[in-house]
Amino acid sequence: MDAVERAKSGHPGMPMGCAPMATVLWTKHLRHNPNNPKWFNRDRFILSAGHGSMLLYSLLHLTGYDLTLDDIKAFRQLHSKTPGHPENFATPGVEMATGPLGQGLATSVGMAIAEEHLRAVYGEAACSHYTYVIASDGDLMEGVAQEACSLAGHLALGRLIVLYDDNGITIDGNTALAFTENTAAKFEAMGWHVQKIDGMDAQAVDQALSSAKQVTDKPSLICARTIIGFGSPNKANSPKSHGSPLGAEELALTKAALGLPNEEFWIPEDVLNEFRAAVAKGDEWEAAWRASAPPSFLAMLEQSPTTDWISNFPTGMEPVATRASNGIALQLAAAQCHVIGGSADLTHNVMTEIKDGGTFSPANRRGRNINFGVREHAMAAAANGLTLHGPTRGMAGTFFIFSDYCRPSLRLAALMECPTIFCFSHDSIGLGEDGPTHQPIEQLAACRAIPNFNTFRPADASETAVAWAVATQSTKVPTAIITSRQSVPNVTPQASADHPAFKGGYVLVDAPSPKVCLVATGSEVGLALSAAKLLEQGGVSTRVVSLPSWYLFELQPDSYRNHVLPKDLPTVSVEAGSTMGWSKYAQAHVGLDHFGASAPANDIFQAFGFTPQNVAAQAIGLLNKK
Amino acid sequence: MDAVERAKSGHPGMPMGCAPMATVLWTKHLRHNPNNPKWFNRDRFILSAGHGSMLLYSLLHLTGYDLTLDDIKAFRQLHSKTPGHPENFATPGVEMATGPLGQGLATSVGMAIAEEHLRAVYGEAACSHYTYVIASDGDLMEGVAQEACSLAGHLALGRLIVLYDDNGITIDGNTALAFTENTAAKFEAMGWHVQKIDGMDAQAVDQALSSAKQVTDKPSLICARTIIGFGSPNKANSPKSHGSPLGAEELALTKAALGLPNEEFWIPEDVLNEFRAAVAKGDEWEAAWRASAPPSFLAMLEQSPTTDWISNFPTGMEPVATRASNGIALQLAAAQCHVIGGSADLTHNVMTEIKDGGTFSPANRRGRNINFGVREHAMAAAANGLTLHGPTRGMAGTFFIFSDYCRPSLRLAALMECPTIFCFSHDSIGLGEDGPTHQPIEQLAACRAIPNFNTFRPADASETAVAWAVATQSTKVPTAIITSRQSVPNVTPQASADHPAFKGGYVLVDAPSPKVCLVATGSEVGLALSAAKLLEQGGVSTRVVSLPSWYLFELQPDSYRNHVLPKDLPTVSVEAGSTMGWSKYAQAHVGLDHFGASAPANDIFQAFGFTPQNVAAQAIGLLNKK
Repeated sequence: MDAVERAKSGHPGMPMGCAPMATVLWTKHLRHNPNNPKWFNRDRFILSAGHGSMLLYSLLHLTGYDLTLDDIKAFRQLHSKTPGHPENFATPGVEMATGPLGQGLATSVGMAIAEEHLRAVYGEAACSHYTYVIASDGDLMEGVAQEACSLAGHLALGRLIVLYDDNGITIDGNTALAFTENTAAKFEAMGWHVQKIDGMDAQAVDQALSSAKQVTDKPSLICARTIIGFGSPNKANSPKSHGSPLGAEELALTKAALGLPNEEFWIPEDVLNEFRAAVAKGDEWEAAWRASAPPSFLAMLEQSPTTDWISNFPTGMEPVATRASNGIALQLAAAQCHVIGGSADLTHNVMTEIKDGGTFSPANRRGRNINFGVREHAMAAAANGLTLHGPTRGMAGTFFIFSDYCRPSLRLAALMECPTIFCFSHDSIGLGEDGPTHQPIEQLAACRAIPNFNTFRPADASETAVAWAVATQSTKVPTAIITSRQSVPNVTPQASADHPAFKGGYVLVDAPSPKVCLVATGSEVGLALSAAKLLEQGGVSTRVVSLPSWYLFELQPDSYRNHVLPKDLPTVSVEAGSTMGWSKYAQAHVGLDHFGASAPANDIFQAFGFTPQNVAAQAIGLLNKK
Repeated sequence: MDAVERAKSGHPGMPMGCAPMATVLWTKHLRHNPNNPKWFNRDRFILSAGHGSMLLYSLLHLTGYDLTLDDIKAFRQLHSKTPGHPENFATPGVEMATGPLGQGLATSVGMAIAEEHLRAVYGEAACSHYTYVIASDGDLMEGVAQEACSLAGHLALGRLIVLYDDNGITIDGNTALAFTENTAAKFEAMGWHVQKIDGMDAQAVDQALSSAKQVTDKPSLICARTIIGFGSPNKANSPKSHGSPLGAEELALTKAALGLPNEEFWIPEDVLNEFRAAVAKGDEWEAAWRASAPPSFLAMLEQSPTTDWISNFPTGMEPVATRASNGIALQLAAAQCHVIGGSADLTHNVMTEIKDGGTFSPANRRGRNINFGVREHAMAAAANGLTLHGPTRGMAGTFFIFSDYCRPSLRLAALMECPTIFCFSHDSIGLGEDGPTHQPIEQLAACRAIPNFNTFRPADASETAVAWAVATQSTKVPTAIITSRQSVPNVTPQASADHPAFKGGYVLVDAPSPKVCLVATGSEVGLALSAAKLLEQGGVSTRVVSLPSWYLFELQPDSYRNHVLPKDLPTVSVEAGSTMGWSKYAQAHVGLDHFGASAPANDIFQAFGFTPQNVAAQAIGLLNKK
C-alpha cells in the first residue's frame, strides 16, 4: 500500500487480496534460492496478473533477494528495479515480464513442458520442480490463456499449479458484467484437477497446494475466492482498489483496520525473520541439488550452443523452398543445441520436425516435437517459456500470416530478451491459391518494427543456414526465420561461418561502377538478379544487395552500411510485401501496398509486377528521374 | 471434388464431409434470398472453416446466386469469383472473409448481438433471423473463438447456432494429437446448449437444428461427428483429403463409390431443382418482410450516416487528453449513427461509453454499450460482425498496446472492407508508470502497414472530432483512432467539416521561407510547435506539419503532398514511436526504436529526447548536415 501511495500510481488491490495465498506459497511450498535467483532447479513462480507487481516485489524483498526497501520505495520510477509491471531483465527473481494478460499463464505452460521433458531425459536429480502461477480473471478471459490451458490439460502437465485469484472484480465493475462461465467445470472439461477454496484462509491454501502437488497427471487449478483490497474499510471488494493508490486517508484507515501502526513501509521483525529463512533454505536446496545432479548435466548448463554445424550444411543444393532448407538447418542445429518445439498443426508445411526427436506427450516426455494444435498464440508464449526455462530453446512454427496471432508473444519475447526461434513459412503472395487471407503483406514491416527482434528472411538455402546459426547463437534477441513456400535457386555463397549474411546485408553481385542498385530479400533476391542481368544487357551496370536481416544490418558500423548501400547510388527495393520502411534504403520500390489474390503463384507475381522486366523498368525509371 | 481437381489445389475433404449437414441447413432451415444476397433480414451463414470454400460456392451455385458453373470451374484462379478462401467482396452471398481460423465464429457473435439488439429496438417485424456457423476443430482451438464463445454464452445469444464439424482429423493427423478436451462439457460450462449427433445423418441434423432454434436463451453448439473426405475409398477419414486434390484416380474411385457418373461437374437435375426452390422462397420471404417491417426502419436502412454533428463539437476547450475528446466525439456521432460496442474492460480509461446508451445484456437487449470482458481479440472480431450486419456500426476499444491482441481481426476488417471503428488509447510512453509492457512503440508502424486501414492519431480535440467524422463516413475502410492518456493543448483549428485534417496531413504553422520542417502526429504536434518556437527564436524559420493519418494523406494528389512536405525542405519527424516508415517523409527522426520505461510520463519523455530542446537540436543537426 505504501509503495503505491508513494508512487502515486499502481495497483494495491491485488497484492492486498493475494497476500495470504502468496505468503503460504512462498513460505511453505516454493523452493527457490534468494542468493541465486537463477538456480536452475528452482520452482518457477509466475505472477500472470502482472499489475500486482508490488506483491512480487514484497515477496522478493522479504525473502531476501537483492531488492532493498529503497528499491521498493522507488516503485515505478525511472531506472528503478521495481517497474510498474514485473520485468525479468530489471529485477532479480522475476522469471518473466507480465502485465499483458494471459501471457504469464501461457508462458508458464512452456516452462512446465520444459521441466517434464528435462526430468525425463536427465533424471529427477537433474530437474524436478513445480511451476506456480497466480492468475486473475482477466488472465482466464484471454484467448491465449484458454489455448494454453487446453494444451496443458491435453499434455497432462501435473506439476503446473495455478492459483486463480477469483476476487469478483474487474476494472469496469463486477466480474459478472462480462464473465459468468463456470470456470471450474470448464477446466475439468479441459482435463485439469480443480479445487475451490477460500483464498483468504491460509490453511485452506496450504492444503490445496499440497493436494495439487500430489496430483501428478493433471495440471491443477485452485479457484481461490479472495477479497481485492482486503483490509480497506471503503475500498475492499471494489474496483476502486484495483488501479489507483488508496489515498492517504484510506491508507490510514486501512492500517488501523488491519491493526498495523500508522508507519510507512513498516515490516514487523518476526515476519521478516520468518520470510528470510528462505535464504538459508535456498542455499541448502541448491547445495543438495548440486551434490546429486549428474555432473554431465551441470556441465551442460554452462555450455553455449555452437554453430560448427554450419560447415556441414549440404553443398551444391538444387533449387528448393527455403522452408525445406529450414528443415535441413534445424536438424543440424538441433543436434548441437536443445531446440524443442513444433508447429500449430502445420509441421510438414513449415518443416519444423526434429527427425528422430519423438513427439512430446504424456506417454513420451522425452519427445522434442510438440503438437501445439491450432493454437498459434499459446504456442508462441509456450515457446518463450521453453526458452526462459533453459537449457531448452523454444521453437514455434506456423504460416507467416499467422504471426499476427502470435504478436503479443513475439513482442514479449523481444522485451524479455528471450531468444526464442520462430519459424514462419509461406512468406508472401508466393503461397498462391490460398489467397489474401493467407498471404502476408504487412507482416515483414510489422515484425521489423518490433525492437530487439531479428526478422530474418533468407534468400536461399545458404542464408537459411545463417539464419539458424544466428538464431541459436543469440542470447538476448528472438529470431523470426521467414521462409518461402516456393522453390528458390541457390544464389548466395555456400553456407559457412564466413557467409556475409551474418552482417544482415551485403553486396551479392556488383558491377565496376554501378549506376543503380537493387536491394532485395528472400525469394526476390533471385528476381533482382534476373532483373540485373536485363539491366546489364541494356548497358546499365547494376549492383544487387541481399538484405535478409535489417536488424543485423543496422548493428553494422556506418561505414559498412554506406559501403553496401551508398546514399548517392539510386536504389530500388524489391520485396513481395509492404514498402513500409524501405524508404530508408531505397528511393523506388517494387512492393505490395495492397492485399494479394487467390491464384497460382506465378500468375500473382506476374500480375503484381514481380517480373525481371518490371523491376528493370522501375530501375530505369528511377535513373531517368535523377 | 471436380473444382479442386481442376484447380490442382484446395480442400476437398471438408466439403465432402459437411455436405449432408450443409444441405439440410440450406434447404430446410436457412432463410435467404439468392436474388438479393444483401436482403437485410436474411439468416447469416458463416463458414468459419473457410478452407472448405468449395462447399459454400457449391451451395451458392445450387441455390441460385449469381455464381455460375463457369465461376466454379475458375476456382482459385486470378480475378475469379471463387477464390481459395471465401471473400465477401468477391462473391455474392459470402457474408465475410474466412480462412484464418476462429475469426468466422468470433465475428458471428457480433452478428448475433446485432440481431438481438435490432430486434429489441425495432421489433420482430424489422429484424428477426438466425446466425448459423459451421466451425472446425481448428476454429475451436483458437483463442479468439474461445473468447467469443465465452462471451456468447454470457450474453445468452439464443439465435446463434454453431455446427461443429467434428471430423477427428487435422493437418498433422488425428485431432487427438493436440485436442482431447471434452468440448461438449466445456461449452455447457460456458452456458451453451449442446447436442451431439451423427453429422452424416440428415434427419439427425434436421432435428438438432430444430431443437437449437427452440432454445432461445442460450447459443447452441451441435457437435456433429462427420467423415472428412466422405466417399473417398482411400482418403476418407484421413488428412490426405484435407488440403490437396484427391487425384484423378481417387476421384474416379470416389465417384464410383458414391454411385455418381464419372462426369466432371455433374449436377443431377432433380437435385438442382430442389436447391433452386430457394430463389422463389427467398423472394417470398423478402416480400413478406418488406410488407411487414416498419417503413421508418426500411427508410433508415437506406440512410448514410451524416457528420453534421461536427459543427456541434465544443469550442474553446481547455487542454484535455485526446481519449477524453474521443468520448465527446463519440456522443455526438452516436446520436446520428448506429454505433454499438464497447471496450475490453477499460470503458472509462478508453472513454468508449455511449452515455444513456444502456448496457447490452440478456436483460437489456436495447443497450448499446457492450462489456466485452478482457477479450480484446473476440471484441475486435465481434465488432466486425456488428459492422458487417448493419446498420449497426461496431466499435471496439482498448489500450493501443493491446491492438496486438486484436491484430488478425484488424487485418480482416481491412481485407473485408468493413469500416469498424477501433478506439485505441494510451498511445505512447505518455502512459507513464505502467511501463514497457503497456507502452506502444511499434504499434503505429504496424497498424499503418495494414493495407486499406486508416490509422488516425489526432493531435488534439479538433483532430479527434475529424477522426470520428472520417470513421463514421467510411464505407469500406476501418479506422483506428489512436488517443493519448495525457492532456494535450488545442493547437489545430476548431473542428468543422473544413478542418484540414480531413486530408490526413497539412501545414499547421508556417514561416515565409521555411528552412526546416517538423512533421509530427498526436501529442507530439504540441511538442513540435514548442520546438519550432525555439528554432524561430534562433533565427531558423520553421514549418510544422500535422500528419494524423498517413492513409488519408497518401490519397491526396502528388501536388498537395509535395506542397505540404516539399522534397527539398529538410524535415524532422517527431513521434513517440518507432521511426519505421518515417524515412518516406523525413530525413531525421525524433522517435523510439527501443522499448519504453516505467516512470512518470514527463520523466520518460525527457529521458528519451522528447523535449523542445532536443527536437530543435535535431533540426539544426539536419540543417548542418545538408
